[in-house]
Amino acid sequence: MAKGLSKKPVNGMKDISPREMEIRDYVTGVIKDTYRSFGYTPIETPAMENIANLSGKLGGENEKLIFKVLKRGEKLKLEEAVSEEQVVDYGLRYDLTVPLCRYYSNNSNDLPKPFKALQIGNVWRADRPQRGRYRQFTQCDIDILGEAGNTAEIELILATTTTLGKLGFENFEIRINERKILKAMALKSGFNEESLDEVFIILDKMDKIGIDGVKAELVDKSYDEQVVNSYINLFTILQDKKSVNEALNYLDNELSDFLDKDVSTSMRQIEEAVNGAKSAKFELVFDPTLVRGMSYYTGTIFEIAIPEFGGSCGGGGRYDEMIKRFTGQDVPACGFSIGFERIILLLMEQDFRIPESGKKVAYLVDKKLPFDKYTDVMKKASKAREEGLSVLVTKMNKNKKFQKEQLREAGYEEFEEFFAD
Amino acid sequence: MAKGLSKKPVNGMKDISPREMEIRDYVTGVIKDTYRSFGYTPIETPAMENIANLSGKLGGENEKLIFKVLKRGEKLKLEEAVSEEQVVDYGLRYDLTVPLCRYYSNNSNDLPKPFKALQIGNVWRADRPQRGRYRQFTQCDIDILGEAGNTAEIELILATTTTLGKLGFENFEIRINERKILKAMALKSGFNEESLDEVFIILDKMDKIGIDGVKAELVDKSYDEQVVNSYINLFTILQDKKSVNEALNYLDNELSDFLDKDVSTSMRQIEEAVNGAKSAKFELVFDPTLVRGMSYYTGTIFEIAIPEFGGSCGGGGRYDEMIKRFTGQDVPACGFSIGFERIILLLMEQDFRIPESGKKVAYLVDKKLPFDKYTDVMKKASKAREEGLSVLVTKMNKNKKFQKEQLREAGYEEFEEFFAD
Repeated sequence: MAKGLSKKPVNGMKDISPREMEIRDYVTGVIKDTYRSFGYTPIETPAMENIANLSGKLGGENEKLIFKVLKRGEKLKLEEAVSEEQVVDYGLRYDLTVPLCRYYSNNSNDLPKPFKALQIGNVWRADRPQRGRYRQFTQCDIDILGEAGNTAEIELILATTTTLGKLGFENFEIRINERKILKAMALKSGFNEESLDEVFIILDKMDKIGIDGVKAELVDKSYDEQVVNSYINLFTILQDKKSVNEALNYLDNELSDFLDKDVSTSMRQIEEAVNGAKSAKFELVFDPTLVRGMSYYTGTIFEIAIPEFGGSCGGGGRYDEMIKRFTGQDVPACGFSIGFERIILLLMEQDFRIPESGKKVAYLVDKKLPFDKYTDVMKKASKAREEGLSVLVTKMNKNKKFQKEQLREAGYEEFEEFFAD
Repeated sequence: MAKGLSKKPVNGMKDISPREMEIRDYVTGVIKDTYRSFGYTPIETPAMENIANLSGKLGGENEKLIFKVLKRGEKLKLEEAVSEEQVVDYGLRYDLTVPLCRYYSNNSNDLPKPFKALQIGNVWRADRPQRGRYRQFTQCDIDILGEAGNTAEIELILATTTTLGKLGFENFEIRINERKILKAMALKSGFNEESLDEVFIILDKMDKIGIDGVKAELVDKSYDEQVVNSYINLFTILQDKKSVNEALNYLDNELSDFLDKDVSTSMRQIEEAVNGAKSAKFELVFDPTLVRGMSYYTGTIFEIAIPEFGGSCGGGGRYDEMIKRFTGQDVPACGFSIGFERIILLLMEQDFRIPESGKKVAYLVDKKLPFDKYTDVMKKASKAREEGLSVLVTKMNKNKKFQKEQLREAGYEEFEEFFAD
């Protein structure tokens, strides 16, 4: 073995086996077909971005996790260098949203308005490696750029849930909230504008530490106890509201000084249209505790919860201020990302069998078969493939029984054997 | 506009537009389906490899073109560093063959024998950017690992040419040569073993500088003129041999002291089987001037020439000694790579139209349509999609004529309009 060569993939990344690839290809196909049927068009951007684009505070915490690319040739002056900025020019992208905004900024003149984009691609994050979480993983995003109205949200939710339905998921939840409601609830309770980021980081832990945990942590951070109590009280009351409508009615009254009525009207419209036109079995739920980490969201936020998983399996929201960072001009934007890797993991665990397209046949050829007879077998295989079969031509192993077992495992249903006379 | 944000992709890489993505997705689908019907199974490896794997002399000239990834956290000691090795741990892969061999070395116990792999993935090379050549590009490889006999070559050629045929290519050439013939011709002419690498680098320029150019360059390098003359003479004689058989007969006689007869027998078998079982229109041509740059090839080498292109559009060969570098054990290996990016380029230039699957309909909705009516439109669209149509719901623009033109361009054939009463 040559010195230093490593058989393993780099730390925290993984090789994808034929079995998993089969499922990934199938899922990718369903996703692309379904999103296409809604009018989304695929684009792709390079794996690398100029490092400035990845470090411009568009990516929140992910900016700490960038794999950075060393400058090359004369541009690299290693011995003089005292900081990373001096030796690095590119970075591996940590999401697909920043590259999309860059792409749109550069090409908007040639794109339809609104532009409906579909992206399926790898991203890289130098996270601490842990079970089931990798440093390279596939993201799958749809985005509508240039549409300010809530028809964008409605369509993103319908397209995403239709796709999940086609993949066999049902009885999941789409949780929805609005940054403006989130903000109004905090201000109404008495928090001031500057403390909102910290308050929301704590609120975001609700599903892990519960409402009492959130309360304790807020008090712990020395927020006024009366303010905290009034905040927690709002959530307790909302928990008892049976319907989205009832919850929004309450908020309309309660937050009237802090919240424009248009916001709840828009939420009601989204609920009405989604429930009217949905083609998959799921519930749309108003969740006032939903925060979504990424600080770039400006309006609606949503998240998918699939009961088979503990936590979230994708999400998204409105980020109306990101493209302006590239162009100086306002462009409304809204996107939804499905948890591609979690879906694959779940299907693998359920030993998912993809619907087979053509029959798979294996020709087992005796090693001693003369060459002209072998050529005949190849001809026969070509003909069968033209008729739509999958044909594997392979030499007969000594342990034919084991060989056939392996082949059956790989989906081959029929065998034909060719012996030397 | 935020300071330092860049709208362009990184230098030498490109964004892929919806129109090109449509073609890429179609081509990828045809490739995967066809190769699958031959029994190839897809795998995927991470974009990054440990830097040692990329610098172990497995990649020839490509090792000079690696995008290297900076170490992170405490492992990075920038101020002490005097060499790249100290600050780098990973690199972006420059091909799919090195990762495949690493993968096979790590997983061979769980893989069928022989293992037939299909890989479609991006690779990165820090080449000087030039027109039509990018620093990130897609490669598409099939490989057979663990098969020493020429049935591997036969199958790789049949699978690759069938795929090209399904993509509409015909009347192309597969050029084939053997490293052992290449070597025997040079030794017979009087070159010594040590000069072979240099001689072949010059021979490889044949298609650019012609036979006289090759001769002049060899003489220029101070090789014995008699040796050079005898070498050039061999190629001149072979040019006149009408058939592969005739050429091989001549070589069998001429090189008998330098070449095992098994080599030409194997070449004849490949020709016979490929011509017998091929399903696409192409010629298999013996080309004694074919070198293929990569120094790791050990036996058969081949190349695709499509008349619409000047040069090669893919190629491959046998590389029986690479996996040993990882495992210490011999594993025969042979692969064929098609020029994915060149094929896409050609189809784009020909304004290729992909065979449409479902009808594409656009619903144009009046901006003043009341919300309940809008919900009805969404319902209708959901229903139409369930029946197999692609339905884009979009707001009616002021310039409806231009909007429809754009949509027709994107493949929408039918329009339905929804007005506010």
